[in-house]
Amino acid sequence: MTRVHVWGASGYGASEAIAFLAAHPLVELGLLESASLGGEPAGLHFPRLRTLDRSFDFPGAILSAIEADDVVIMGGAHGSAKEFAPKFLEAGARVIDLSDDFRLAPTRAVYGLPERYKAQIAGARFVANPGCYPTATLLAVLPLAQGDNEIAQIIVDAKSGITGAGRTPSVRALYAEVAGDVHAYGLEGHRHEAEIAQELRAAGIDAPLVFTPHVVPLARGMLADAYVMMRSAPDASAVRAAYARFYAGNSFVRLLDEGVSPSVAAVAYTNDAEIAVSVHGNVVRSICAIDNLGKGAATQAVMNMNLMLGFPEECGLDKLGRPSTGAPYGARSG
Amino acid sequence: MTRVHVWGASGYGASEAIAFLAAHPLVELGLLESASLGGEPAGLHFPRLRTLDRSFDFPGAILSAIEADDVVIMGGAHGSAKEFAPKFLEAGARVIDLSDDFRLAPTRAVYGLPERYKAQIAGARFVANPGCYPTATLLAVLPLAQGDNEIAQIIVDAKSGITGAGRTPSVRALYAEVAGDVHAYGLEGHRHEAEIAQELRAAGIDAPLVFTPHVVPLARGMLADAYVMMRSAPDASAVRAAYARFYAGNSFVRLLDEGVSPSVAAVAYTNDAEIAVSVHGNVVRSICAIDNLGKGAATQAVMNMNLMLGFPEECGLDKLGRPSTGAPYGARSG
Amino acid sequence: MTRVHVWGASGYGASEAIAFLAAHPLVELGLLESASLGGEPAGLHFPRLRTLDRSFDFPGAILSAIEADDVVIMGGAHGSAKEFAPKFLEAGARVIDLSDDFRLAPTRAVYGLPERYKAQIAGARFVANPGCYPTATLLAVLPLAQGDNEIAQIIVDAKSGITGAGRTPSVRALYAEVAGDVHAYGLEGHRHEAEIAQELRAAGIDAPLVFTPHVVPLARGMLADAYVMMRSAPDASAVRAAYARFYAGNSFVRLLDEGVSPSVAAVAYTNDAEIAVSVHGNVVRSICAIDNLGKGAATQAVMNMNLMLGFPEECGLDKLGRPSTGAPYGARSG
Amino acid sequence: MTRVHVWGASGYGASEAIAFLAAHPLVELGLLESASLGGEPAGLHFPRLRTLDRSFDFPGAILSAIEADDVVIMGGAHGSAKEFAPKFLEAGARVIDLSDDFRLAPTRAVYGLPERYKAQIAGARFVANPGCYPTATLLAVLPLAQGDNEIAQIIVDAKSGITGAGRTPSVRALYAEVAGDVHAYGLEGHRHEAEIAQELRAAGIDAPLVFTPHVVPLARGMLADAYVMMRSAPDASAVRAAYARFYAGNSFVRLLDEGVSPSVAAVAYTNDAEIAVSVHGNVVRSICAIDNLGKGAATQAVMNMNLMLGFPEECGLDKLGRPSTGAPYGARSG
Repeated sequence: MTRVHVWGASGYGASEAIAFLAAHPLVELGLLESASLGGEPAGLHFPRLRTLDRSFDFPGAILSAIEADDVVIMGGAHGSAKEFAPKFLEAGARVIDLSDDFRLAPTRAVYGLPERYKAQIAGARFVANPGCYPTATLLAVLPLAQGDNEIAQIIVDAKSGITGAGRTPSVRALYAEVAGDVHAYGLEGHRHEAEIAQELRAAGIDAPLVFTPHVVPLARGMLADAYVMMRSAPDASAVRAAYARFYAGNSFVRLLDEGVSPSVAAVAYTNDAEIAVSVHGNVVRSICAIDNLGKGAATQAVMNMNLMLGFPEECGLDKLGRPSTGAPYGARSG
Repeated sequence: MTRVHVWGASGYGASEAIAFLAAHPLVELGLLESASLGGEPAGLHFPRLRTLDRSFDFPGAILSAIEADDVVIMGGAHGSAKEFAPKFLEAGARVIDLSDDFRLAPTRAVYGLPERYKAQIAGARFVANPGCYPTATLLAVLPLAQGDNEIAQIIVDAKSGITGAGRTPSVRALYAEVAGDVHAYGLEGHRHEAEIAQELRAAGIDAPLVFTPHVVPLARGMLADAYVMMRSAPDASAVRAAYARFYAGNSFVRLLDEGVSPSVAAVAYTNDAEIAVSVHGNVVRSICAIDNLGKGAATQAVMNMNLMLGFPEECGLDKLGRPSTGAPYGARSG
Repeated sequence: MTRVHVWGASGYGASEAIAFLAAHPLVELGLLESASLGGEPAGLHFPRLRTLDRSFDFPGAILSAIEADDVVIMGGAHGSAKEFAPKFLEAGARVIDLSDDFRLAPTRAVYGLPERYKAQIAGARFVANPGCYPTATLLAVLPLAQGDNEIAQIIVDAKSGITGAGRTPSVRALYAEVAGDVHAYGLEGHRHEAEIAQELRAAGIDAPLVFTPHVVPLARGMLADAYVMMRSAPDASAVRAAYARFYAGNSFVRLLDEGVSPSVAAVAYTNDAEIAVSVHGNVVRSICAIDNLGKGAATQAVMNMNLMLGFPEECGLDKLGRPSTGAPYGARSG
Repeated sequence: MTRVHVWGASGYGASEAIAFLAAHPLVELGLLESASLGGEPAGLHFPRLRTLDRSFDFPGAILSAIEADDVVIMGGAHGSAKEFAPKFLEAGARVIDLSDDFRLAPTRAVYGLPERYKAQIAGARFVANPGCYPTATLLAVLPLAQGDNEIAQIIVDAKSGITGAGRTPSVRALYAEVAGDVHAYGLEGHRHEAEIAQELRAAGIDAPLVFTPHVVPLARGMLADAYVMMRSAPDASAVRAAYARFYAGNSFVRLLDEGVSPSVAAVAYTNDAEIAVSVHGNVVRSICAIDNLGKGAATQAVMNMNLMLGFPEECGLDKLGRPSTGAPYGARSG
């Protein structure tokens, strides 16, 4: 079995990845390197890992033990992968980086949004896992790239659980600051805008974007409401058809029936995304719900890993957190 | 002292009004009529009213005791004021109705948004208190009516605490349904849209509106993000000046400095509204935070009452829930 | 594969059971009968069941389709199993009842607490699934029955998530009532006391019990702090040894190291229980955390079903909600 | 008007005190000294202080401006008052210290629990404000000191909102750690036990104490369930009478009717305490609810200040956060 190490293992996204990797039938959990919690039992710090009888490994552990064709999932703070990802690659490992260090040109790895770049990911040894805001936004908007209507303006109003801010303690992420409040932030610009814009442009969408992220009282979850203003009123059924076409064969994206709302609770602990699209005059409203720690981070990384290793894309993802539709595990994942 | 009755007294908005009325220095709390909780101690059902030594009164109590120049604040379910408001008016009372029964033409009372209709409210005997969504939306958008730029499209993405759904038990308002979830609702239309549209038109704004309400895990609070698309790029300082002009002399609306975000927590338990406005190309983004039970219901009703009775508009509102800037109470309200 | 029907399928406990049954490798999900939601898509009402392509069945569906050796998990309101459980049994089915209709003498089924009655459950056709409060309390206290010290008094201070109150709408279970509050209830007696007392007595513990349930702002989860006052000071290591002995071979109960606290979050979505026991003079403090919907209801029912059907007890339970320690699924469940 | 400075002004307790002081009719808000936020607008960091047009002052500000008969409320971290309280006292100021630096013998200030030491506080220039856990526990237990029954054992199971952990960022206080979890902590001993024990002994209660603090998903609020085991069964009405006697004339403590539960929500933002006492065989159960930031910190400090300055004890406390029973403000406090 392929050995998968987790570097920067004590963040929210990384610990979520560990939970899924530990239960993945086709990989073996390797080292769990943490700069801050080396030597500490994982279960003491992450309730979700209580049943995992493992301690975090100390800095340097992965680099000294790594072998060719291991996988490293990198979960450290933004900026920290810059130095180590090249070393892991040089050692012959495959790397999936959860940070934004390698998402933007000119230092890009393959952009790990499977609904868009499945073929490229399949052949890649180095994947930059998308941010949670870009994931939700791109899933909501990309199908419109295929349409004939010209986009005049894109407005994205996104609501995020606070784990998006990471596990390094900060006043803004304290319970007493988050509970009872809802507010926008980054009013003067958010670092994810460049990532969103890059990928929209790559898909041929070059309209101006107003992106407003909000913190809502959720530990996990993200809802992105995209309002795409067209130069003329699009046909509703054509728009719906474009979305259906775009997501045909994508097992984790659910297009909801008219009138049904995407629910953050419905995708919690999963790699699923729910999308509802509707047309209101010149405006296409496309709402996307994901788990910022799941499809927005850890499970998307596992899916990318599956693609990179040639496993079925659902492997290790369909039975965790949320049950799916009842077929025995073995029947589905091969 | 003027006697103020509360009809439909056992809802969330009404109980909030009772709390403020009980502490109001210039009125006397009258009857608290409730169809469902007549005879029950108010403090047993509303923790916030624990120190109020009062029981709810039985149906019919107000009508049999009402005197000319009493005030009745009506907090019953939508539809229920239709029958009783005329009776209270006929008895010579002043009426402020929290429901939407008299907000829309042709059966309108004076629309009780003081920032827009202060003069009309001052002379009124019958005021329809605005809904919480219309209050937040109109406060965010109305100042743009004065501008020269033509509005092409209005998009409002609103987030509400669940008390907006009322206190009549429903599955959707259960703790286990609201906690951990964020979702839009009313995707095919929301009853508040007509109210918003009516008031925008009255102000000369006739652009198409896409309105998306969301439930967020809050007991109280509302954030409305209005994205107003202009036909050409407006001047940011002109826009800010228009907002400053519109709210000059309005003691409960705070225009925030650039980069500061309106916060639902900052307005909780108050009649305050916070607004941040900025310009992004052709789009004016105006974000407004209110307490849906305060400025969106109960405290707006108290403010309307103050205006109707000729009291200082802040009376009973500046010292409750949240302290204001330190001047002794008497110095301000008397 | 054995077919498992769920009766009273639209409650919180039942829907949780459905989620686990749908992913259980050795059973087939049968009918999902609901008196209130017959005909409705399950995923519309339960986000956790969004990926389950099933609608609730109408009243009577199970009785008309039931076959010998089917299993029925009954999740209806307390009182409702009285009539139907005998009919299902008569049809030759096995029944696991989540209500308290058959927990108390003289109309008892086998009491489905596997840590206590595993052998009896294994041979049973009719199991009364324990209540969540009794489950947490008994797990915390029962190991003391083996000791030599005489128990003078038992005090249990329990904290429960609100799903314990069920999904039938009530004011007390509304989000706005539960968020921001903690309070005891049932100060004059709680229906679960008789169940706890019966099972303590059956184990030879006959001391007076003070039981205080609380509602805390949780959707799911339960913590029971048991303070057991002995007539003389017990030996701490002997007490810990008694707990270790009692839970030897029980795969779902974790005795925590000294100083480590049971965490509701650590057992959420699982059949796990965490217990910390310590001695303070004459007092043994034993704290037990479970998921009231998991070990306190649905997953305990699935475990009972596994025992009744001769499956490995962990089957369908070790990979759902929370990953366990990494062994491939197939290797564990047979 | 007396000038009141706040030292260590940027913690949760101190900011709460500022809110009440700013609205207090008989004092003037002085300097707001903060080591970490000097120069920063208070309203940017504390939504509750948004309407307060003040910035935090820099370290040293109070000491250089202090005058005789000023009051200093000290809200810094535990340990930090040791150095500065003597300097403020030497300058002739009155000091109320929220930390535990001066609560324990031999370096005690007057212990600021008004229900116990009102006379001593009235004459004091230096008061140590009690901790939140000791406040709730002592209010629950102290009335039993007057009884004839001998106490064999005291068990206190306390539930606290997370603001008790302070505003200095820590992983354990992050939203994602607190939401969805309930757990005990300090299983091997909590620093407040010595404070509780000291005050129980001072009242003549010398029984062993088992004290178990828990974190619950609340920003503010505390519930202490005290289970006091007597050597023989006490008379219920005698116990209730003892509580009534103990709290006679104490305007902020509400003894609840039988069957009514103390509610954290009912005392939020106030100086109120709710107590329910009942007898169960040999056990007296006494449950006390307070706001850990109110009666457990800031409002208790304001009450102590009122007593030290000879003001009516309710002054500045009866109209904030929660309205009381409707008498005009001036009529009550002046």
